[in-house]
Amino acid sequence: MKKSIKIIGFDADDTLWVNEPFYRETEKQFARIVSPYYAENEINDELFKTEMRNLALYGYGAKSFVLSMIETALRLSGNKITAIEISKIIEIGKAQLNLPIELLDGVEMVLQKLQPHYKLILATKGDLLDQEQKLQKSGLIEYFHHIEIMSDKHENNYRKLIKRLDIEPQDFVMIGNSIKSDILPVINIGARAIHVPYHTTWQHENDHEETDNSKFITVEKLTEVLNIL
Amino acid sequence: MKKSIKIIGFDADDTLWVNEPFYRETEKQFARIVSPYYAENEINDELFKTEMRNLALYGYGAKSFVLSMIETALRLSGNKITAIEISKIIEIGKAQLNLPIELLDGVEMVLQKLQPHYKLILATKGDLLDQEQKLQKSGLIEYFHHIEIMSDKHENNYRKLIKRLDIEPQDFVMIGNSIKSDILPVINIGARAIHVPYHTTWQHENDHEETDNSKFITVEKLTEVLNIL
Repeated sequence: MKKSIKIIGFDADDTLWVNEPFYRETEKQFARIVSPYYAENEINDELFKTEMRNLALYGYGAKSFVLSMIETALRLSGNKITAIEISKIIEIGKAQLNLPIELLDGVEMVLQKLQPHYKLILATKGDLLDQEQKLQKSGLIEYFHHIEIMSDKHENNYRKLIKRLDIEPQDFVMIGNSIKSDILPVINIGARAIHVPYHTTWQHENDHEETDNSKFITVEKLTEVLNIL
Repeated sequence: MKKSIKIIGFDADDTLWVNEPFYRETEKQFARIVSPYYAENEINDELFKTEMRNLALYGYGAKSFVLSMIETALRLSGNKITAIEISKIIEIGKAQLNLPIELLDGVEMVLQKLQPHYKLILATKGDLLDQEQKLQKSGLIEYFHHIEIMSDKHENNYRKLIKRLDIEPQDFVMIGNSIKSDILPVINIGARAIHVPYHTTWQHENDHEETDNSKFITVEKLTEVLNIL
């Protein structure tokens, strides 16, 4: 792969830093808040349904998540949830936006080794401000030539990105943890992809067509990309 | 100005289409919902205070606005607001996200006349998805070479934009309704700006240093930029 690649795209959440486990933790707190009104072990499935219904209108990211938690609490409690409980939901949402960044193993070393040889870009989805602030807190901003925050990671957005970078699809490789967002749309437009699975994945990211694993490379840890690139 | 300009940046909300009056309308509905608990004519000032406190964490845009409305309702009611009233706030927030786009006078004609002679870009702030959807609904997307959605319109973000467009500041003119966001940061980095005031302005956009009106042009209506460009 080495020779022809000019630009490497990195996903951020759960590829460079911990994200999904923090959401799982907030969801547990949410379920506890709503548990007086509904079976606690079913609350997060209901939250997920709300999130999916709101996705087209709200998009991805932490603020959408908080709005969907509030809506789910209202619905599951049959409008009996109290104002104090709603306040707690807003608080756990703010706490999540304020979390420090926890880099995954070897991330900085990998970026350091690749930066002299390739142009590195960050390609992520979610809240614009939240993602910018996470990157700022991560201390990794200096490694990236360009930051692309997309409303969704579908083929057309990757196509536009590659066009704007003024390269051909085969000059680009995307590295990320989500088959649905980082791998399939990228290989479908003729670019390359390296999958670095993460132990915790949002249910929504698992909703994708079957994959032909011969079309992309999977590595166990991010540091292994150095053997390929 | 004509000769040296290569790229024209347009603000979107209240420059190309109606925005602030819709927010004012939603705020009126919000004040009615909260009026059983607080002096109705003071509710929107309190909402503004919440928005300003949340700005660094939530950023601009409709979802931040809804979250701040809910928080304000909880606070002003002393946690007495009911779940049904919170549901109504979520509903008026969703209604605002679903509003159709109402183009301002002459917008399409101006873009049509300028497009053959300049590269046009759209530079706006707010929710990424919300702004993309508004642009989609506006039918104006074909006029723009590039869409830039910024978390905030400060000097550094304009500097980065101009660098990425591969031009010098003096090759760029920004057109918009907000002195604070579209004019001052642009002239401060050596680019040019044309101010097209709009009758309704968010209080936050009026919070800026004194302006030296000799440094930018003000026109009464967007169509007048055709006399300058």
